[in-house]
Order: sequence, then structure tokens, then C-alpha cells
Amino acid sequence: MALLVVGSVAFDCVETPHGKVDDAMGGSASYFSYAASYFTRVRLVGVIGKDFPEKYKEVLRKRNIDMAGLQVANGKTFRWSGVYDKTMNERTTRSVELNVFADFDARIPESFRDTEYVFLANGSPVMQKRVLEQMTRMKFAVADTMNHWIQDQRPQLMELLKHIDGIVVNDEEARLLTGLTNLISAGHAIRKMGPKIVIVKKGEHGALLLGDGFFFAAPAYPLETVKDPTGAGDSFGGGMMGYLAETGDLSPANLKKAVLYGTVCASFTVEDFSLDRLQQIERRDVDTRYREFVEMLRV
Amino acid sequence: MALLVVGSVAFDCVETPHGKVDDAMGGSASYFSYAASYFTRVRLVGVIGKDFPEKYKEVLRKRNIDMAGLQVANGKTFRWSGVYDKTMNERTTRSVELNVFADFDARIPESFRDTEYVFLANGSPVMQKRVLEQMTRMKFAVADTMNHWIQDQRPQLMELLKHIDGIVVNDEEARLLTGLTNLISAGHAIRKMGPKIVIVKKGEHGALLLGDGFFFAAPAYPLETVKDPTGAGDSFGGGMMGYLAETGDLSPANLKKAVLYGTVCASFTVEDFSLDRLQQIERRDVDTRYREFVEMLRV
Repeated sequence: MALLVVGSVAFDCVETPHGKVDDAMGGSASYFSYAASYFTRVRLVGVIGKDFPEKYKEVLRKRNIDMAGLQVANGKTFRWSGVYDKTMNERTTRSVELNVFADFDARIPESFRDTEYVFLANGSPVMQKRVLEQMTRMKFAVADTMNHWIQDQRPQLMELLKHIDGIVVNDEEARLLTGLTNLISAGHAIRKMGPKIVIVKKGEHGALLLGDGFFFAAPAYPLETVKDPTGAGDSFGGGMMGYLAETGDLSPANLKKAVLYGTVCASFTVEDFSLDRLQQIERRDVDTRYREFVEMLRV
Repeated sequence: MALLVVGSVAFDCVETPHGKVDDAMGGSASYFSYAASYFTRVRLVGVIGKDFPEKYKEVLRKRNIDMAGLQVANGKTFRWSGVYDKTMNERTTRSVELNVFADFDARIPESFRDTEYVFLANGSPVMQKRVLEQMTRMKFAVADTMNHWIQDQRPQLMELLKHIDGIVVNDEEARLLTGLTNLISAGHAIRKMGPKIVIVKKGEHGALLLGDGFFFAAPAYPLETVKDPTGAGDSFGGGMMGYLAETGDLSPANLKKAVLYGTVCASFTVEDFSLDRLQQIERRDVDTRYREFVEMLRV
């Protein structure tokens, strides 16, 4: 089944202990859609400025990502600049220029409205909700969010939570949203706010999946070299949602597999800057690493 | 097979967001031996003062722990006092009174010297090495250590590492020992220092197991209420080593199971203060939770 993602397409300036890139291809929808494209047909809704190069669009087009929803606005493309500390677990934002993303009106093209699987990458909960209202045959919607919205648009976020099936948050966001420090308790508390499924991303410590009567914990794939963690969370989302859309199976057993596929996609992303590593691999590489990972974790 | 533990038996004064205990039964060897006693015959070597109450000794005696190696010295028992922050991930030591533990000479009773499985709970690497030298039929020795020894007795610790089969460290200790932030790299670097097996404990994020050609990551057992994390690491060690000694199987597949048994023992310990929760359970409770846990993690 097809999968829709609504999110940012951006320029990233990133510095890590392993190097530095300027104006590299980035944005939540870019990472998400690239990772998801290994599994299913992806439809992307986002916005870029006139300055966004054709070669970056070509990266997504090569993966058959449908860009009928990629608006081109007058102005500059969203640009993010950040630096990671030596542990790679902490990052500092140097600058954020929202540019054309500031006025992003997430109009879903007519041809995208019947998409059954929907991922709302980080964005305002008001915009995220507006996306849902445009969908006609939605089966499974998952949203990402961040600290900013939890703090500044809590009522709007709480409203969104009533209308989505799943949410992806990191550990800090889970605690901020619920006021609970225990992540298991926080996950269950978020489920009571609406989503049937909660995924808590923990970076190098993997991810938790909480649902009605089931729990799963996936470690991160063990990598010795992480060059750039940017996009790990969005690639995780893309792998997870891509696998779910491909299989059309939302059972707890399949959700666990989806979390491991998401983990595998994230592991490739962080092996190099931007989407560089993803562009070197094919579906069979994803499957090979997935099988290795499952074998590693088998008891 | 029998299992020897050398470590502390102590009074703990602990404060957490869930309550407070004074002069509760504690110490690495207490937690370790209690957890291990579900699996195998445990031999304990440690030291207490004249002030150590009979009822605390009785707690261990009831589990058939052989206390022929528990020396009673003139003076007071080791006493630790600490407080946990509200996340339960950080703790501050209020005071440490080593008392009789300061001059602890780990003489291994004649009847204990043929023990095949040995656990050296946290202590000076010089003392730990001296224990190994007294053993006559050792098959598998694992040591715990801490920041203090890594910083102040590094040469002695490096010497010890050459003579043990496995080491248990937490994430901070792994980084301090190797200077590496990536825990997978740190684990492999520690293996190059001597131990064939490295276990990295990560608290609420579970534990990593690294060996020659194998890797395993166990999440923490998902608990919503953690009352007191004290003794979690030692109970983990006790469950892990107890299961290995019981089965006499050091294959990678069995080491993974042992890590999960250790995790299960730790999960019971943290459900209440001191050894209170451990005293309420039996082997079948450990097995039941183990099976639930394995089922939870199955993909």
C-alpha cells in the first residue's frame, strides 16, 4: 500500500567529530521517504524554495518517490545548522532558517488523498491535524513531534493525539509530554491521550514500542562508527512505516518487525553524512542487515 | 556447579522518591548471593563487624548460602548512605564508612577453593587478583569494578583483566576505562585488555553482551514502579552467574540467556528496598518472568 509523508525538505549544515557538511540534503521528509522507498510507494508532501537544486530532487526521484506534493515556493529552502558533541548523543542547533517552511500550507494533492498509511513528520500539530482532515481512506496515521510543540502548543497537540494511531517521540519528549520519568509509565500515559501505539526513540539505546497488551524493546544496531546521527529518527520512521505499508499487517508481531526494520534503516543513515549511505544501498542490504540483527537478538 | 562470590556485606541507608530505609541489609555480596541462590549453591566470602544482626545473616542462610567465608571482625560493618534523584538514574553518595571492609583480607576457606565459577564483586583489583590466586579449579571468573579503581589503580586493574574471563562494567566505567564514547567500540577495546566477555550495564536501558563474534543487547525488564535501584547491578550479576553455574554452559546462546536471567533478577530487586522483594519470590517466579520476557522480545 502507498505511504504518505508530510514534512520538511531542507539544507543541513552539520558538524560531527567525523567531519562537516554544508548545504547537504536533509529534512524529515527526505530521510523518511528515502528509507520508506525500500518497502513501498512513497508520496511526499513538503515545500522547497527556488534555491533547491535539481540534483537533490533527483535523489528522491530515482527511488520512485512521488513528488507531486512537493511545492516550490518563492524564497529560500528551510536550512538547519547544528553541531554534535563528541559522544554524538547531544547536539546543539547553531541556526534554524525556516524560510519557505514557515508558511507551509500542507495541501494534499487530490491524487494523494486516498493514501492509507500516513506519517506526519515533525511540524505544528495544527498543520498535522489539517493533513488528516484531507485524507479520505486513512487506515493508519503516525505522527512525530518535538519539545517545541509540547511546550508551546500543548492543547493543539492533545487534540491531534485523539486522531492518530501512533506517535513517535524521543525519551526527553515522552517525559516532557507526561511529566513522568519512567519511560514505560510515560509510554502508557501517552497511549491514554489517544494513540494506540507509542514508540519511544532512545538514540544509541534503541527504541521502545508500547501497545495494548504488548511491549517491545529494540536495541540500536551495534555500530562502531557513527559519522552523523542526523536523520536517524526520520529514517527509523521511514523504515518502520514503509514495512507496515508494504505488509499491510498491523499485528503486534508485525509491529515489532517494523521497529527492527526502522532500526536497520536508521543504522545505515548514521554511517555517513546526509543521505550518502542510504544512496549506496538497496533493499537486499536492508534485508541482510535485518536478518543479521534478528539472529543477533535471538534467545 | 558451585559459585563463589567475594564482596561486601553492608548496611545501606537509602533514600529514593518512593521512601527511605536506614541500616537496611545491603552490600554487593548480599545481593549477588541472594539472586544466585535461585540457581545454584553459593559460597560467600566477605566481612562483617560485630554489629551485624543475626536476622540479616539468617536471610542468606535461609537460601542455603554457604557463609563459611563470612569473616566477623572487630569493629563496625561497612555502611553506605545515598540518595537517588527523581529520575532514579542518578545517585549521590552521602557517606561511605568502610569500617571492617577497609582491611578486608579475602582469605578463601579451604573448602571453597575448588569452586569453578567465581565472581569478584567490586573491590580493589589487588584483592580481586589475590582471590584468583587462591582458587584451584577455576573455570570461569568474572569481575565487577568501579570508577575509583579505574582512576586510581589502573595498572593493577589492567593486570587483573589478564586473568579473568569476563568483566561487568556500567556505561560510564566502560568509557572511562577505554576513553571511547561508542559503547560497542569500548566493549571490544576492553576485550582486547583480556576478558573474553564484556557486559556493559546501562541501567534503565538494559545491558550489552560482547564476545568473540557475538553481540547481544538486553533491554531492562519493563517496570512501571522502581522503588530502589540499589543492588540492581549485583543482582544482575548473581542471576547471570547463577544461571551459568547451574547450566555449566558457556556458549554464546547460553550467555544470552544468562544475561536475561540477570536482568530478571535485577527487575525483582528494584521493585522494593533492600532485599525485600527478593525475599518474597521463589525460583518459579524468576522462571515465569523470564519466560514472559523472552516472549515479549521474540520477533
